[in-house]
Amino acid sequence: MDCEILTVGTELVLGFTVNTNAAEMGRMLTEAGLHVTGMTTVGDHPGGIKGHLGAALGRAGTVIVSGGLGPTSDDITRPAAAELFGRKLVRDPQLVEQLRAMFKSRGVQNMPESNLVQADVPEGATILPNLRGTAPGLWIEDGGRLVVLIPGVPKEMRALMSDEVVPRLKRRAGENGWTVVRSRTLRTTGIGESALADKLGDTSGVLGASVTLAYLPTVAGTDLRLTAWNVPEQEADALLEKAALALRPRLGERVYGEGETDLAAVVLKLLEDKGASLATAESCTGGLVGARLTAIPGSSRVYKGGVVAYDDEVKLQQLGVSADAIAEHGAVSEAVVRQMAEGVARSLDASAAIAITGVAGPTGGSDAKPVGTVWIGVLWQDQVRAFTHILPGDREDVRGRAAQYALDYLRRRIQGSSR
Amino acid sequence: MDCEILTVGTELVLGFTVNTNAAEMGRMLTEAGLHVTGMTTVGDHPGGIKGHLGAALGRAGTVIVSGGLGPTSDDITRPAAAELFGRKLVRDPQLVEQLRAMFKSRGVQNMPESNLVQADVPEGATILPNLRGTAPGLWIEDGGRLVVLIPGVPKEMRALMSDEVVPRLKRRAGENGWTVVRSRTLRTTGIGESALADKLGDTSGVLGASVTLAYLPTVAGTDLRLTAWNVPEQEADALLEKAALALRPRLGERVYGEGETDLAAVVLKLLEDKGASLATAESCTGGLVGARLTAIPGSSRVYKGGVVAYDDEVKLQQLGVSADAIAEHGAVSEAVVRQMAEGVARSLDASAAIAITGVAGPTGGSDAKPVGTVWIGVLWQDQVRAFTHILPGDREDVRGRAAQYALDYLRRRIQGSSR
Repeated sequence: MDCEILTVGTELVLGFTVNTNAAEMGRMLTEAGLHVTGMTTVGDHPGGIKGHLGAALGRAGTVIVSGGLGPTSDDITRPAAAELFGRKLVRDPQLVEQLRAMFKSRGVQNMPESNLVQADVPEGATILPNLRGTAPGLWIEDGGRLVVLIPGVPKEMRALMSDEVVPRLKRRAGENGWTVVRSRTLRTTGIGESALADKLGDTSGVLGASVTLAYLPTVAGTDLRLTAWNVPEQEADALLEKAALALRPRLGERVYGEGETDLAAVVLKLLEDKGASLATAESCTGGLVGARLTAIPGSSRVYKGGVVAYDDEVKLQQLGVSADAIAEHGAVSEAVVRQMAEGVARSLDASAAIAITGVAGPTGGSDAKPVGTVWIGVLWQDQVRAFTHILPGDREDVRGRAAQYALDYLRRRIQGSSR
Repeated sequence: MDCEILTVGTELVLGFTVNTNAAEMGRMLTEAGLHVTGMTTVGDHPGGIKGHLGAALGRAGTVIVSGGLGPTSDDITRPAAAELFGRKLVRDPQLVEQLRAMFKSRGVQNMPESNLVQADVPEGATILPNLRGTAPGLWIEDGGRLVVLIPGVPKEMRALMSDEVVPRLKRRAGENGWTVVRSRTLRTTGIGESALADKLGDTSGVLGASVTLAYLPTVAGTDLRLTAWNVPEQEADALLEKAALALRPRLGERVYGEGETDLAAVVLKLLEDKGASLATAESCTGGLVGARLTAIPGSSRVYKGGVVAYDDEVKLQQLGVSADAIAEHGAVSEAVVRQMAEGVARSLDASAAIAITGVAGPTGGSDAKPVGTVWIGVLWQDQVRAFTHILPGDREDVRGRAAQYALDYLRRRIQGSSR
């Protein structure tokens, strides 16, 4: 089934916002077996929205529209769609009640009246409940034509797509002859793209004719994406499973997870299984590792906390780093990172610890320790091991890579790697 | 001058690749004074490209196309454009020579013949040299219609846009009546979109006919983007200045900065001007505030570090929170957040402190303290003030908002707000 995606927002056409929604919707629709034939983006102008929506509908018959459903005056998708189908906007009393209740639950007694436009619905449209925000999704069908409106807030878009839009589209299309494009991703870190390719060797024999492999390098590592193209839905997962099973032995301990798995969650799970507890001592990353760990629900069962030792005085006072070590080797050194890891484990009474100190840049580098130099200390089973890297990229890259490397060193130590 | 952007690539419509090219081209064209009225993305299908290109050309008269110019069989933008203008593709002998020379310089003696399609040019087109890759840009003009083709490789796209496409577009338009679209953004936090709209009231009178206002809500707050549309280049900045000056008094202390300004940088600058130093004590945010502060180069002049007191034991041992306070009021309470702020300022010897404790969810909530409940303590001039909120959203939202609110409370205290 053909469909197009229309994303609405002046900030998108001005280029101030990168259109991640369009990509995410494209992926979800493709995985569900729809054939996305085009994507259009248009600013917040009633004429533009109506014109582009009408054109897309003429081409594909089905258009999923994201954005322009909020309460302010620049939100005009709803009337444009209603006009296109020749329908009136009617205020839905149940939605009005839900809006008032939602504001009340947030402690706002008098909801601003401007929010009520979000209860306006084209006559005959189906309301798709939005549990995360105030603007509901709307499903407007007429003859063979279908327009679905969903909010542009990414979390709301995502939830409405997976809970409402995709299941309804599949039901509408029926199950006959349904082929899908589906992907599966193996995540690696701490190894470059070409080193990975060398490890994998020739893969053409094991992937099969419908499955391709792509390398996707990011600051967090290199993801390996396996894609099964235009295969019957019931075969897709088996094809991908076969390909993943063929590649995994070649990658060994380099694969830390699949899909959206966060390395921090992997580390927490491994520690929990061992009954261990974790503390962090961060200098150049300033709390990044702690923030990533605590982003995972349930992290409190393992993670006790940490010290952000940005200033050297904090390294001395809170972590018991010796002034001599800093004077002799500098704050970015093996001696200091070892003392940081030992110090934080001792004072927070944790059985595992991660410590990071480095030169994140843009200034502060020297010939001996250029920008990007980091020392990582990992305490596990009463023993600290220290690692150093010169990480590429800007300040943000260096900090992001340092946090990821530190978590990965701990993961591999727990899993019994020789390092 | 109106234009549209067409990006070509199956990876884009499938959603595997986020379309950063479209955003970047939009920004470059807008800043140069073009009016981007729409963006379209289409897969590598000849029919689709021709249809979408023709439609865009009909709407806007000028279309900048990126992608689908390489040597492989899925690169079909060139013939689609030629066909649309009713022109033949002619192999350009000079381009053939350049291609052979480029491959030779890369150590490839026998260039694959498939590369020669990149020397095919629609009759009468202007060749835009591509110094970074093998596919040149092409400028095809006919009467009032203009199509520009550039490669999809981001580095090549960027160079061709700034070196060739943008200067030629400006020359083509001439200096007469050259108008630009220019933006300016006011950043707010701690106030909802509809409450902001109520504060601003009717803005039509003060913005003027050419300036629009857009609300861009994120977890970090709501940005207000003022955009001057189609105004003479020399008047644009004055119009935006006038609009910003008219809105700022209505928003008062709610505006913390403009453009890309990060609230963490604002807070650091205010503290540095006062000769103050800062420490953080984070429970539910787990290091987020520290990570944001240390993301700013030069933060070490103000930020000393902090304690991630995720476990209650760490609150007691490292921050001197009293066991009685936790037993009596719970870890998420005014009493505890006050002691956390005082404790971290004392032990890190800082003159300002931020403390955060809360229920980030998804579990851990109760009737008295539902998920989203946070207490924020701000120490400034030897006095702690404490604030509580029930923040909406999921775990990530609650943590992000809590960090932003905490920074904003400190900002407003330094700036002398009554709170």
